[in-house]
Amino acid sequence: MGTTTVGSPPPEARLVALDGQVRLSSGASLTAVQVAYETFGELNADNSNAVLICHALSGDSHVTSGESGREGWWEPLVGPGRAIDTDRMHVICSNVLGGCSGTTGPGSPDPATGKPYGRSFPLVTVEDMVDVQARLLDELGIERFAAVIGGSMGGMQALAWGKRYPERVASVIADATTPRLAAQAIGFNGVGRQAILEDGAFADGDYYENAEQPDAGLAIARMVGHITYLSDESMREKFGRRLKDRDGYAFEFVHEFEVETYLAHQGRRFIERFDANTYLYMTKAMDYFDLCGSDASLAEAVAGMPERFLVLSFSSDWLFPTYQARQLVDALLVSGKAVTFAELPSPYGHDAFLLEVEAQTALIRPFLENAVRANSAHLGDVSPTGPKLEAVAS
Amino acid sequence: MGTTTVGSPPPEARLVALDGQVRLSSGASLTAVQVAYETFGELNADNSNAVLICHALSGDSHVTSGESGREGWWEPLVGPGRAIDTDRMHVICSNVLGGCSGTTGPGSPDPATGKPYGRSFPLVTVEDMVDVQARLLDELGIERFAAVIGGSMGGMQALAWGKRYPERVASVIADATTPRLAAQAIGFNGVGRQAILEDGAFADGDYYENAEQPDAGLAIARMVGHITYLSDESMREKFGRRLKDRDGYAFEFVHEFEVETYLAHQGRRFIERFDANTYLYMTKAMDYFDLCGSDASLAEAVAGMPERFLVLSFSSDWLFPTYQARQLVDALLVSGKAVTFAELPSPYGHDAFLLEVEAQTALIRPFLENAVRANSAHLGDVSPTGPKLEAVAS
Repeated sequence: MGTTTVGSPPPEARLVALDGQVRLSSGASLTAVQVAYETFGELNADNSNAVLICHALSGDSHVTSGESGREGWWEPLVGPGRAIDTDRMHVICSNVLGGCSGTTGPGSPDPATGKPYGRSFPLVTVEDMVDVQARLLDELGIERFAAVIGGSMGGMQALAWGKRYPERVASVIADATTPRLAAQAIGFNGVGRQAILEDGAFADGDYYENAEQPDAGLAIARMVGHITYLSDESMREKFGRRLKDRDGYAFEFVHEFEVETYLAHQGRRFIERFDANTYLYMTKAMDYFDLCGSDASLAEAVAGMPERFLVLSFSSDWLFPTYQARQLVDALLVSGKAVTFAELPSPYGHDAFLLEVEAQTALIRPFLENAVRANSAHLGDVSPTGPKLEAVAS
Repeated sequence: MGTTTVGSPPPEARLVALDGQVRLSSGASLTAVQVAYETFGELNADNSNAVLICHALSGDSHVTSGESGREGWWEPLVGPGRAIDTDRMHVICSNVLGGCSGTTGPGSPDPATGKPYGRSFPLVTVEDMVDVQARLLDELGIERFAAVIGGSMGGMQALAWGKRYPERVASVIADATTPRLAAQAIGFNGVGRQAILEDGAFADGDYYENAEQPDAGLAIARMVGHITYLSDESMREKFGRRLKDRDGYAFEFVHEFEVETYLAHQGRRFIERFDANTYLYMTKAMDYFDLCGSDASLAEAVAGMPERFLVLSFSSDWLFPTYQARQLVDALLVSGKAVTFAELPSPYGHDAFLLEVEAQTALIRPFLENAVRANSAHLGDVSPTGPKLEAVAS
């Protein structure tokens, strides 16, 4: 993942300052919002090949290496000749509102005080993130995407894009995501938040200028989260009951099983690159997200969304399980959308969307090619020339 | 569960002091070990109807109300006319070594200093717990049980009993348990321990005489654990996405989903009755438990165990999943044991062993009746008169 400092944009990112206010779902508003973004590949002649990638909880704008050579968080899927082919697509990825990698978030200076917002930063929703991305796209002069794509919380953003700005999105790729979290995932998020909130160094969120940081709480939140990103099967395969560098039990309270040392390492790595407040804001946004919203049914909620969907789930993903993706697919089909749906077999749990390259490429790449054709046709106000996608799920 | 004070035995418990030393798996030893236990029902004329119940992580000796009228932790399964029928069986249940409900544990006074052991208490294993129970049974003059039964960590003790003292156990009931934890469960235990160890009030385990206790860490450990005791299905059913006492989102970092308030409540309740050090010791004992031990295979490891087994798992239990119970069953069958095995359908996850009364009763009750007959025959050195159990799984 390379080295970035908590609260700083990736070195490759460009920054744009949004004029005026950003109004939020909560009723609050923000001024002086800054967005960190990166682009990869060229916009084509008719502006039809723009693809917006939305990142998950801990991501940032650096989705792939591009010219920098520094590996991005979705490197195997995004780049020349890959699933999201930067030789053919103009890819845009920005850090979300509330994040800690260049876009305005709780660690950013409050223009009213000059000091970091901390907990005075208003809670944001997935819809707020999407609204800020829409403002960024206005700045960049991109009217309409071929596709918006994301995994996990990024998939929630892709869905929210389709719901809020259907006229700006030719297609939606919802990868390892859900129209709404169920109780178990909300429970895990809640426990992670409690670990941060109860950390003595959290200081009610105003820890930025303190010597002590809420590292212990953030690490525990990450460790809990990390288990939910893997699967029982992948953990057995990866760690089994092996001890780390020892032949017998220590009979002490140390990390002695490999799985313990691995999780502790993940916790330590995370605090070097992520902000505890942002963790709170991101998990809350995920808990709040409900594509159904105030509509009577999910089918009703999706009726006005774009025509083309690719929905992917993974067999061992128990955090964003297939049955939830199917609820979305069923609703889309009821509403007459063209949906390609696949549950991809994988042992890797939720992390599969970062790891299963071949199976995702086989579906995403042709879907995007069709999406560009459809977008080009729409922008040129002519009929699409590519083959029409067919629904493969019911 | 009634009211008990952390570190005190249940009011109904009797205490027995073990003479001399208790040697532990680690090589350490303890003196002045005290055991808190309760008995229910009468021992019959030929001493053949004793049943030892072993408790799980947070249990104690008070398995059922008995004469006290105060509900026990396995009330629906244990009592007059129930699965473990105290009109017909002589039930014994004791708090485990390392516990915090009357048996010697990290909160007990170290005879060398008069102060609580804290972290100087040696780590204990499931085998050590069983050895202390065997000493208790010596004191009570019970030579041989009809059955030893337990769920979860209690099931590990039942297995360890069968392994260490096969001549003292006519049969074993392994309920919602495993011959060894896999990496995912060890990972969750490790995260729970880290939450306690990193709590500022933990004071390296010597917090007993302090004003501040490691309540926040223990509550987080319990909340993580609690999610693993339920299932996605039961949590959806019980909580869904319902908000607690509000119509819309709070846009604040408060517990607003019902599942959050429930888990927080479980965390708060737990710190009133449980000791943070004991949580560390119990989870470590579970992580260490491996019925296979130094044997080449599980089948070899179980070869010398008693002849009669009842193994129960629950369809939605993902902490002690059925595939692990089947590994045990397969090994027992290879070794020629008489094994009754059932995966009981239940939405309740690991907690099903506390909640699924009817299905468990239908299997446990007749199994115990046969076990008493077999035990009586063994003790009287005559042939069993009851029908022989047959293996129902392969």
